Amino acid sequence: MEIKVVKDILGANEQIAARNQQLLDSNNVFAVNLMSSPGAGKTSLILATLKRLKGKIKVGVIEGDVSSSLDAEVIGKEGVPVVQINTGGGCHLDANMVFSALGSVPLKDIKLLFIENVGNLICPAEFALGEHRKVLISSTPEGDDKPFKYPLMFHEVDAVLINKIDLLPYLKFDVQAFSRTIKGMNEKVRIIPISCVTGEGIEEWVSWLLNQMGMVI
Amino acid sequence: MEIKVVKDILGANEQIAARNQQLLDSNNVFAVNLMSSPGAGKTSLILATLKRLKGKIKVGVIEGDVSSSLDAEVIGKEGVPVVQINTGGGCHLDANMVFSALGSVPLKDIKLLFIENVGNLICPAEFALGEHRKVLISSTPEGDDKPFKYPLMFHEVDAVLINKIDLLPYLKFDVQAFSRTIKGMNEKVRIIPISCVTGEGIEEWVSWLLNQMGMVI
Repeated sequence: MEIKVVKDILGANEQIAARNQQLLDSNNVFAVNLMSSPGAGKTSLILATLKRLKGKIKVGVIEGDVSSSLDAEVIGKEGVPVVQINTGGGCHLDANMVFSALGSVPLKDIKLLFIENVGNLICPAEFALGEHRKVLISSTPEGDDKPFKYPLMFHEVDAVLINKIDLLPYLKFDVQAFSRTIKGMNEKVRIIPISCVTGEGIEEWVSWLLNQMGMVI
Repeated sequence: MEIKVVKDILGANEQIAARNQQLLDSNNVFAVNLMSSPGAGKTSLILATLKRLKGKIKVGVIEGDVSSSLDAEVIGKEGVPVVQINTGGGCHLDANMVFSALGSVPLKDIKLLFIENVGNLICPAEFALGEHRKVLISSTPEGDDKPFKYPLMFHEVDAVLINKIDLLPYLKFDVQAFSRTIKGMNEKVRIIPISCVTGEGIEEWVSWLLNQMGMVI
C-alpha cells in the first residue's frame, strides 16, 4: 500500500511537470534542473554561467533550499530575476513547488531558467519538475564511489559536471574510473570536468548547454 | 492532513526508537548515529576510530546506504561485525530498519555501535533510531554556509566533526565563523576539527566519545 501511495504521488507530479514544461515551451524558455550534494557548487556554477552569458542570453533562476535565501541573494546581485522556494524541511523540489514559483518568474523576458534543487543526491532524482535537461554536479572531495551509492541520480541525468578539479592534486579521486563508472550506468551522459574557482571547463559546459538549447552564440 | 500523516509516522518511529534503545541498554551497548552529506567521511571516521579502539573496545557497525555494500565490505575487512541496510531509494534510516538490523548484530559481544546513516543532510535529522548520541560530520569543501541551509541537522546533533581540515589551505572556509554559527543554533554541541587523512583531531574525538560512554581507556 505504501508503494501505491508513492506511485500516485509520482504520477501526479509527472502531470504537473508536463504542464510546467508546456508553460516553459510556450514562452521559449529552456529549463535546467541543477542537482548535487550540499556544497558541491550549484550556485557557483550558476554564477560562472551568468558571467559567460551576460549580454548574450537572459537567464532566470529558481532557488530551492530547505531554509534561508542566501543563494538567492548572491544570485540576485547579478541582476537576474531570482525566485526562492523554501521547502520547509522537504528534501527535494517537486513540480508543484516549481509551478508556484513560475508565476513569479518573468518568462517572457528570459531564454534560460536554472532551477537549483535542494542539496541532496537521492530524492531530487525522482521528481520531474518540467525541466528540459537534468544536470548533476559531482564534487571531487566527495569521492569517486558515489555512482555506486546513488545510482538513480547518475542514471537520470543528461550531464555530470565533475566540479572542484582544482583540488585533484590533494585528493584520491580517479577521474577516468569515475567517468567509466558513470558511462556504464548512463551511456549517453555528457561528462565535463570543471572548476568554478579557476574557470577550467566552464567554456565546454556553456557550449554543451547552448547546443542543447539549439543555440550558438 | 499531510502534516498529520507525517506526525503519525514520526510518532511511530519514536516508539520503535525507544524500544531499540532499551534493547541496546539491556546489552550495555552505546550507539552513535553518524550523519553527513555524501562523501563527507563517515566511513573514514569509523575506520580511524576502529584503529584507535582496537584491542580496547569491541565495536559493531550498521551501514546504511541507498544501494551497494561498498562501505560494509571495507569495514568488514577490519574484523568487526557489520550489517548492511539498503534503503532501496529511501533517503534516511528509520528506527524500524535499525530494529531489523539489530537482530543480526552480536550485541552481547560489543560495547559500541556505529550506525552509519544514508548520506543526506536533511531527512536523517528527523528520524530517531534509538541512538545515544547523534554525530554530524561536516566536510570543509562543502562550505561554511551549511548551518543556515540545513538548520535542523545542526540543531539536533551532539557533536559536529569538521572533517578534511587538511584541505583548508586550498579552500575558503572560516572554521571560527562556522563554529560560531553552529554554537548560535546549538549551544551544547561539541565541535571538533578533524582530518581522517592526517589523523589530526581523531584523538580528541575518541576522548569525547569515550567520555560520553562513561569510559576512560
